[in-house]
Amino acid sequence: MRILITGAAGMIGRKLTERLVKLGKLAGRPITALDLSDVTPALAPPAQGIKIRSRVGDISMPGIVDALIEKRPSIVFHLAGVVSGEAESNFDLGYRVNLNGTRALFDAIRLAGYGPRVVYTSSIAVFGAPFPDVIDDDFQQTPLTSYGTQKLIGELILSDYTRRGFLDGIGIRLPTICVRPGKPNKAASGFFSGIIREPLAGLEAVLPVPKSVVHTHASPRSAIGFLVHAAEIDGAAVGPRRNITMPGVGVSVGEQIESLRRVAGDDVIKLIREEPDETIWKIVQNWPTRFNASRARELGFKAEESFDEIVRAHIEDELGGKI
Amino acid sequence: MRILITGAAGMIGRKLTERLVKLGKLAGRPITALDLSDVTPALAPPAQGIKIRSRVGDISMPGIVDALIEKRPSIVFHLAGVVSGEAESNFDLGYRVNLNGTRALFDAIRLAGYGPRVVYTSSIAVFGAPFPDVIDDDFQQTPLTSYGTQKLIGELILSDYTRRGFLDGIGIRLPTICVRPGKPNKAASGFFSGIIREPLAGLEAVLPVPKSVVHTHASPRSAIGFLVHAAEIDGAAVGPRRNITMPGVGVSVGEQIESLRRVAGDDVIKLIREEPDETIWKIVQNWPTRFNASRARELGFKAEESFDEIVRAHIEDELGGKI
Repeated sequence: MRILITGAAGMIGRKLTERLVKLGKLAGRPITALDLSDVTPALAPPAQGIKIRSRVGDISMPGIVDALIEKRPSIVFHLAGVVSGEAESNFDLGYRVNLNGTRALFDAIRLAGYGPRVVYTSSIAVFGAPFPDVIDDDFQQTPLTSYGTQKLIGELILSDYTRRGFLDGIGIRLPTICVRPGKPNKAASGFFSGIIREPLAGLEAVLPVPKSVVHTHASPRSAIGFLVHAAEIDGAAVGPRRNITMPGVGVSVGEQIESLRRVAGDDVIKLIREEPDETIWKIVQNWPTRFNASRARELGFKAEESFDEIVRAHIEDELGGKI
Repeated sequence: MRILITGAAGMIGRKLTERLVKLGKLAGRPITALDLSDVTPALAPPAQGIKIRSRVGDISMPGIVDALIEKRPSIVFHLAGVVSGEAESNFDLGYRVNLNGTRALFDAIRLAGYGPRVVYTSSIAVFGAPFPDVIDDDFQQTPLTSYGTQKLIGELILSDYTRRGFLDGIGIRLPTICVRPGKPNKAASGFFSGIIREPLAGLEAVLPVPKSVVHTHASPRSAIGFLVHAAEIDGAAVGPRRNITMPGVGVSVGEQIESLRRVAGDDVIKLIREEPDETIWKIVQNWPTRFNASRARELGFKAEESFDEIVRAHIEDELGGKI
């Protein structure tokens, strides 16, 4: 079986590639070929029996998606996209890649006429404030960013194309991925990971918002679990509503810090420095806090049950199990 | 002030044109020019002091929307679109006109850089079954038709472009328009109007579904009222959620018939022949029944309060007040 991953050079793409190579099979079938696509070269670990091909190209450019679909991958993971901040600051780029690129990919699949499973990463950015305390699965989608708008349009096309039989889509709305590995970045949400990752590495981290801020998180490990489950799930069980809010752990920043204390001790906590940033706080106030996500849970999508687990997953997966 | 109407040759477009000519002003400013656009020539009543220009063209074709926006209409009514049944049977046409055409129009406005009020007709087709008994304003949008999908994508772009200041959009989700004047058509929803319109004209009408079927209706007169109000409403009062479910009268088919009896008498009712049609009933079962629409009412959008009023509106507006 051939699998295509777009956005394969990103953090989630790399981890998904590693997981698939390790699994060697998906949905009960052996993986024989893995096509990796991104705007920069995507890397893969050595794999026996899997032919890995890395292709560099922008999915919104002519011909790129047709080449990706030419060999009719049985499962397509569509992760490629311009991230939230960039889609907001660069209007043209966001609409071109996130909307036109996604539509081009889905249309190439439609025109190929073989109806593969397509797993699409959407985002909780499809929701916009004001919110109820807990967002139920039937809550309206009114995005307040161009990124959320573009992701939601992708969801809608995915649904309609599934209904028409052009593809067999599952859209997964990811919560904030925490703890995100790597260096601190300028994303407004960066501190959610930073206050865990940096202290665990012996570095100072800045907390720009009050500890009362509540947010929903899932580990990178859970995100990969969602993707694999979405590839394997029975479409009939999902029904016509193909886009599903993923589960996560809804906690306050204070609870995040208490988890870190329990797992790593008091000294680590001292590396978190509170430095209020009104700009970041204003942005974060428009973000959803807690989700019900009961549909996802009923369909077998699994996230951590506590933030302690999220901290431990980071230590196991990124720090070799040692602090 | 210059006003542009796309889809001006359709039933709503014609009635809106007539209303605007009659009003002579909108949002407190005199109308000096009215640009009518459609794929067939749009007609207008004689108007003193208003320069009426009719342009034939498909908004999804190159150059058409740029020409429409060239003179910078202060208010744009975007009604043009491929109807539900046709968007379902002709995939390419629906996506080309309803999605690409709408996006082209909004982009032409964006590039013109002057931020006019844009009134966009969306539809309750943005909602998909299963439904609660009454659909609240915060209910999720999961369309089950390509038409609903395309209309919703238009809503999302309208919202995002409004947020970015490219235009000042108001999207109105119309319920079923009843009593639709003219001849019977093959739309699955046609009978809702047919069972009122045909008997009032002394003709037999077929009722293909049980009398227990509940549906929400607004008269053509109310639809024009919604459009005019949407053109005049204070955008700040609307806030960031720019797409609003319009009010209507939620009644069973049996109640529709009782209204007709009260307004027009027993003999007229005898012209309704029950002839169950499983195909139509199956389609109708996926349609929403009742809406709360409290946001629209709070914002001053007004519909009829009873189906009797809807029957009387038809008699007054289409039959010269006489049965």
